[in-house]
Amino acid sequence: MITMSRIALLSILFWSFGWAQADDSVPAPSNVRGAEYPRVHSDLRVTFRIKAPGAKNVQLQPGGDDNGLGKGPIEMARADDGTWSVTTPPVIPGFHYYWFLVDGLAVGDPASETYFGWAKESSGVEVPGPDADFYAVKEVPHGDVRSRWYFSKTTQKWRRAFVYTPAEYDRNPRKRYPVLYLQHGSGEDERGWSNQGHANFILDNLIAEDKAKPMIVVMEQGYATPPGVVQATATQGRGTGQPSVFEQVVVDDLIAMIDSNYRTLADRDHRAMAGLSMGGGQTLQITLTHMDKFSWIGSFSSPLRGGLDLKTAYGGAFADPAAFNKKIHLLWFGAGTGEERMLKPALAMHESLEKAGIRNVFYQSPGTAHEWHTWRRDLREFAPLLFR
Amino acid sequence: MITMSRIALLSILFWSFGWAQADDSVPAPSNVRGAEYPRVHSDLRVTFRIKAPGAKNVQLQPGGDDNGLGKGPIEMARADDGTWSVTTPPVIPGFHYYWFLVDGLAVGDPASETYFGWAKESSGVEVPGPDADFYAVKEVPHGDVRSRWYFSKTTQKWRRAFVYTPAEYDRNPRKRYPVLYLQHGSGEDERGWSNQGHANFILDNLIAEDKAKPMIVVMEQGYATPPGVVQATATQGRGTGQPSVFEQVVVDDLIAMIDSNYRTLADRDHRAMAGLSMGGGQTLQITLTHMDKFSWIGSFSSPLRGGLDLKTAYGGAFADPAAFNKKIHLLWFGAGTGEERMLKPALAMHESLEKAGIRNVFYQSPGTAHEWHTWRRDLREFAPLLFR
Repeated sequence: MITMSRIALLSILFWSFGWAQADDSVPAPSNVRGAEYPRVHSDLRVTFRIKAPGAKNVQLQPGGDDNGLGKGPIEMARADDGTWSVTTPPVIPGFHYYWFLVDGLAVGDPASETYFGWAKESSGVEVPGPDADFYAVKEVPHGDVRSRWYFSKTTQKWRRAFVYTPAEYDRNPRKRYPVLYLQHGSGEDERGWSNQGHANFILDNLIAEDKAKPMIVVMEQGYATPPGVVQATATQGRGTGQPSVFEQVVVDDLIAMIDSNYRTLADRDHRAMAGLSMGGGQTLQITLTHMDKFSWIGSFSSPLRGGLDLKTAYGGAFADPAAFNKKIHLLWFGAGTGEERMLKPALAMHESLEKAGIRNVFYQSPGTAHEWHTWRRDLREFAPLLFR
Repeated sequence: MITMSRIALLSILFWSFGWAQADDSVPAPSNVRGAEYPRVHSDLRVTFRIKAPGAKNVQLQPGGDDNGLGKGPIEMARADDGTWSVTTPPVIPGFHYYWFLVDGLAVGDPASETYFGWAKESSGVEVPGPDADFYAVKEVPHGDVRSRWYFSKTTQKWRRAFVYTPAEYDRNPRKRYPVLYLQHGSGEDERGWSNQGHANFILDNLIAEDKAKPMIVVMEQGYATPPGVVQATATQGRGTGQPSVFEQVVVDDLIAMIDSNYRTLADRDHRAMAGLSMGGGQTLQITLTHMDKFSWIGSFSSPLRGGLDLKTAYGGAFADPAAFNKKIHLLWFGAGTGEERMLKPALAMHESLEKAGIRNVFYQSPGTAHEWHTWRRDLREFAPLLFR
C-alpha cells in the first residue's frame, strides 16, 4: 500500500511536470525531409527547436497577430548542448508562419520547408487538426499543378502562373473546362494556394467525391508594376503602396493566355475569381468592374471598407440589384470567427447587400483566424457552388 | 594642364579604391521580389548585405568547396546602420548556394529565394554570365512543369515528381513522346532541376531551335526508404547512409505511373536517364542493370569509382562491348574543368571504356566546378543527342 501510494504520488508529480506524458509527438509534415523538429503532439502542442550555441536569447515568433500558435515572441529555453526549445500550449490546427528571433535577428528554421509569406521565404508549421482530411493527399485521382511562364504586355515582363488541371483533363482531349482564378494574400505569391493552401488536394478530393465540378484553377501573383517600374518588396504583408496594374494583367493578358493554352470554356458564365485578404479585395475590384468577364465571385477574409455606398461602389455594380442578381451567379463572402477585424466588415457588407436585395452567401470558419486554415475551408465551401 | 593632371590623378586614385566605379549593379534574379541585395555588378563582382545590428561578426558562407563565389567564410563589414556587407571579387557565372554565418550561426538570407540544397532551404545567387542565354526564359513556346503526386507501392508513401511536358504537348493529343528521367544531387530534391537548373527553359530553347526533339522530362526525388523506415535528413550533401530503395521506385513505380498518366513512347528506345552527382551514380546503377528499360544514359559529375572491373561492374553490363554498343544508343559523361575530383575519374572511365571498345561521349564544361552551371551545360549538350 505504501509502495502503491508512492507510485501514485510520483505519477502525479511526473504528470504535473510533464515528464510522464508519453511523447506521442511526430515531426510536422511541413518539415524538410527527415527533420525531427518542429514536432506536433497529439493534443496539438508543438515543440520547436533550434541549435544556436552562441546565442544569448532565442524566441519563437509566430507570423502575425492572428497566428494560431499564439502571440509572440515566445521565449525558448537553452539546453546544455546549445539547443533552444519551447513547447507551446495546444495550438489552433492549420498552417502557421513562424520564425526565430536569435538575439533579436529574424532567422528561418533550417528544419522547416519555406513558404513565401511576409514577403520572404518564411518557415511554416502544419498542425493537422480534426478536419485535416479534406486537404490531405489521398488515394483519389490527382490533377497536375503546372508552372507556366508567359510574357505580359501590360508589364513588359515575364510572369509565372500556376495552373491546376483536374485529373481527368488529359484523358478528355476534347472536353473544355470552366476556370477559377484564385489569388493569394499580401506578402505571399502564386505558390501560396498550392504550397500553403493545398488547393490541388482540396479540389482533387471534392471532384473525386463529385462535390465540385472538374475545373481549371489559375493561381497568379497579385503584384504588377508598369513597364520600367521595379517591383517593390511586399513588406510585412502590408502591400507595396505602389500603383498596381494587376487588374490590367488579369483582364488583358492572363485570361487570354489561359484561354489560348488550356481547354477552357472561355466565357463569363464559366469564369470565376476568388482571393484571400488582399487577393479578395483584388477579386471584388476586378470582377465587379468587369462583369462581362466574370460571373462567380469569392471574397475570403478581405479587408472590406465599411459604409460602402451601394449606388456608386465598384463602378455602380450594385446599383441595380435585380440586374446584378441576374448577371452574377454567385457572390460569396467568408471569414474566420477568430479574425474580428475581417469578420465584422464582411458581415456588415453581407447584411447591407442582403438588405438591398443583392443575393450573396456568407460563411464563417469556426475558430480560425487570418490564416490558411480559414482559406482552405473557404475553398472547400466555395468550389462546390461553382459552375452549377 | 595642372587641372587636367589633378583630375587624372584623382581619377586614378578613385579607380584604385573603387570609389569612381559606376555602380552598374543590379539585383540578382534569384532574389525575392523587390529585394535589392545581393547585387551583381557587370564585372561579375557580387555585393551581399544583411541587416544584423546586434551581431558581433557576420560572414558570407558559400555552399561547398567548389563554389564559384570562392572559399568561405568571407568576412563582412558592419556599417553604422547595422547592415553588414561584402563585395566579392569577380565570381564564376552561374548559380551558387550560400548563407550567412551570424556569430557562427548559419542563417538564410531573407532577401534570397530559397533553393533546396545542402539538405535545407538554402539561399542562392544567380550570376548571369556570357552564356546565360541558353537557360534564360525567352520568347519561345514554353512547356509546363507539372507537379504530380503519386503513391509508391515500394515505399508505401506519397511521392512528388515534376514532369516537364513540351510546349506542343497539349496541341497534339494523339502524339506520344520519349521520356528523359533527370535526377538531382545529394542534399537536393525534385525541385532542383527546374528551380536551380532551369531545365524547362533549356529544353524550351533547344526545342524551339529544333536542336532537341520534343520530350517529356521527369524529375523525381532521389531518396526512398522501405515501408516503415523514416527518411533521414540528407546531411550536408553527403547522402543519408540509409539503405535506399530508389532503384525499385524508379523501375517498379515511377515508370509505370508516368507511362499511364502521360502520352509516352513506353519502350527502352524512347527512355533516357541522366543525373548529376549522386543522381549520376544512381543513373548508372539503374540504367546499366536495367538495360531492358533504358537505352540513353547521362552521367553528370558523378562520383565514379576508379579501377572498375569492366567484366563485372554493373552486373556485367560492359562485359560484351559489341552487345553493349548495339543495345545502348548513348552513354554520356560530363564534368567541369573546375572539379578535379569528379573530372579525373570520369575521364579515366571514359578512356578505359573507349579502350575496351565501348562507345561513349565525354564533355568538359570549361571553367565550372561541382555546381549547376556545369549541369545546365551538360543538359544543353546531352539533350540534343537523345532519341535520334
